[in-house]
Amino acid sequence: MSIITIVGAGMMGSAMSYPACDNGHQVHLVGTHLDEEIIDHVKDNGIHPKLQRKLPECIKPYHIAELEEALKGADLVIGGVSSFGVDWFAEKVLPLIPDTLPVLSVTKGLLDQPDGQLLTFPEAMRRKLGGSCSLSLNAIGGPCTSYELADRRHTSVVFCGDNPDILRKLKSMLETSYYHISLSTDVMGVECAVALKNAYALVVSLAVGLVEAQDGIGCTQAYNPQAALFGQSLREMKRIIKMAGAKEDNLVYGAGDLYVTIFGGRTRKLGTLLGRGLRFDCAMAELEGITLESVVITTRIARALRKRAQDRSISLSDFPLLMHIDDVINNNMPVAIPWKSIEFEDI
Amino acid sequence: MSIITIVGAGMMGSAMSYPACDNGHQVHLVGTHLDEEIIDHVKDNGIHPKLQRKLPECIKPYHIAELEEALKGADLVIGGVSSFGVDWFAEKVLPLIPDTLPVLSVTKGLLDQPDGQLLTFPEAMRRKLGGSCSLSLNAIGGPCTSYELADRRHTSVVFCGDNPDILRKLKSMLETSYYHISLSTDVMGVECAVALKNAYALVVSLAVGLVEAQDGIGCTQAYNPQAALFGQSLREMKRIIKMAGAKEDNLVYGAGDLYVTIFGGRTRKLGTLLGRGLRFDCAMAELEGITLESVVITTRIARALRKRAQDRSISLSDFPLLMHIDDVINNNMPVAIPWKSIEFEDI
Repeated sequence: MSIITIVGAGMMGSAMSYPACDNGHQVHLVGTHLDEEIIDHVKDNGIHPKLQRKLPECIKPYHIAELEEALKGADLVIGGVSSFGVDWFAEKVLPLIPDTLPVLSVTKGLLDQPDGQLLTFPEAMRRKLGGSCSLSLNAIGGPCTSYELADRRHTSVVFCGDNPDILRKLKSMLETSYYHISLSTDVMGVECAVALKNAYALVVSLAVGLVEAQDGIGCTQAYNPQAALFGQSLREMKRIIKMAGAKEDNLVYGAGDLYVTIFGGRTRKLGTLLGRGLRFDCAMAELEGITLESVVITTRIARALRKRAQDRSISLSDFPLLMHIDDVINNNMPVAIPWKSIEFEDI
Repeated sequence: MSIITIVGAGMMGSAMSYPACDNGHQVHLVGTHLDEEIIDHVKDNGIHPKLQRKLPECIKPYHIAELEEALKGADLVIGGVSSFGVDWFAEKVLPLIPDTLPVLSVTKGLLDQPDGQLLTFPEAMRRKLGGSCSLSLNAIGGPCTSYELADRRHTSVVFCGDNPDILRKLKSMLETSYYHISLSTDVMGVECAVALKNAYALVVSLAVGLVEAQDGIGCTQAYNPQAALFGQSLREMKRIIKMAGAKEDNLVYGAGDLYVTIFGGRTRKLGTLLGRGLRFDCAMAELEGITLESVVITTRIARALRKRAQDRSISLSDFPLLMHIDDVINNNMPVAIPWKSIEFEDI
């Protein structure tokens, strides 16, 4: 039995306690300063108020003030923060972790650099810690909603990192009969694929709203337009993975992740509102202004692509859907799918 | 204005009359011997009884006995039969078509050869006609349900064939503001991708039934298991396209097509029944024994893969989902997703 400390008690971080406990580990679940209420709830009755499920018995909840206590004796730290918490995690948590203790992060996202290069979160954190850091920073990709992991549904994910031995150890600590783990050292490929799915889930969801604008909300289901955008999304995602110098085959993790993200949540909601005809500022007002990861990642990737296009290392016409959704988000443009630009001649 | 003769008045063949008429063409819609009732209906009141929609005004319906009359003056023949009608189409219709008249077929499918090679329908038809045939045989791939095409939803398809000029001409005859047409001379790549989606739609639908078996029918939606199978399906589809010597990039047409096929129709119904725990013979009995294209294509591809594995040119372990669904279909095995065999190490 090992001790696994999860830092970040949001839905995904907390859901990781299910495969951890089912492997017989003890879990120290540490809320961030944003999770104080969640931890109070869990301390009170064991129920996670957002997941709306009882957490496994093996869990011990901690407030952020108790972080050092929660890290004592840990064999693995799981980073359970969202992309908006990555800086905080790198500054406040990572310095407390000894080099011998591996870190596995659920956070999905990418950063862009002034020169148009993309940066994965593990790499960004490593740079923040300084060159001498030899911490093992690993990440989880692939299609996994927290609710379904908590319900122990069959789920296929991929753990990525630099060190094969550590990856194998992480897998042995967390795999279960329902949590299926592939391993990859192509960190950029995996991280790129799963970060991009947030941007493209927004794109595919536009089609839901477009049909609603035509027929009325909830009247018909039409999949041809979604499928058209889905196919083109995969095409653009593959090109971005290639541009990042990573393995195109890892697109499959992003494809599955795109598939699952389209079916629910705030990204679908935003895409649907935009597709119905709302401008971005109005749609965000309806969503009460919560900043979405899909909006952030779209903006970053589009910025990186524009920079690369200036250097003429890529052509923006290869990414018509990403460029359009970026215009919708950042220039408040109306949705007008560039259908003609996703017709191709390969002859 | 041209005359377009559609042979086969099923849903997809008939739906092609919408983009044809919207381009100002006159459409001769010819029912096969299986479509006598449909043609009677259309002659009577213009409504297609299966599409449940009024066909465009430019349509002139013909019974099969009137085929030669319907072909008079035609500038294009659209083959609107299902894969089960391909032999009939090649034997009874193609010999009546002059070499100067291009053919565009909506039929999706593949044949396997004794040596494990795959054969597209255009190529199979050409062989049937004999070596001297110089008919231009083209095909349509990509995600397109007939209902939605009839409703003029945005739809992205790909026309494939050997001759770029003819492909461009076909596009100019049929493209509309909602029917978006890409072109490709990689007939095998396109046909392989869109045929495979039928087999893998069956695979992904198993996950729907598995969740229903656990929670009850209609109780919960769970997408993690579907997404896991979706990602692995793309992996296997890509390998089969590569095995066929075609362009892996054309996987995107099959991916969009897979996306749209999962949401409805008899293939999803069969996969769901199998996932719930019914053996294949019982599930088929519930579906009243109608032979599905997904069952046929699965059987053919699996047979081709087994033959290739005998020659050691491929390994069956690279296709765990296809091999499993083939066992379920052809050996009446219970569904037991080989989860462990879709975990990978790329390190």
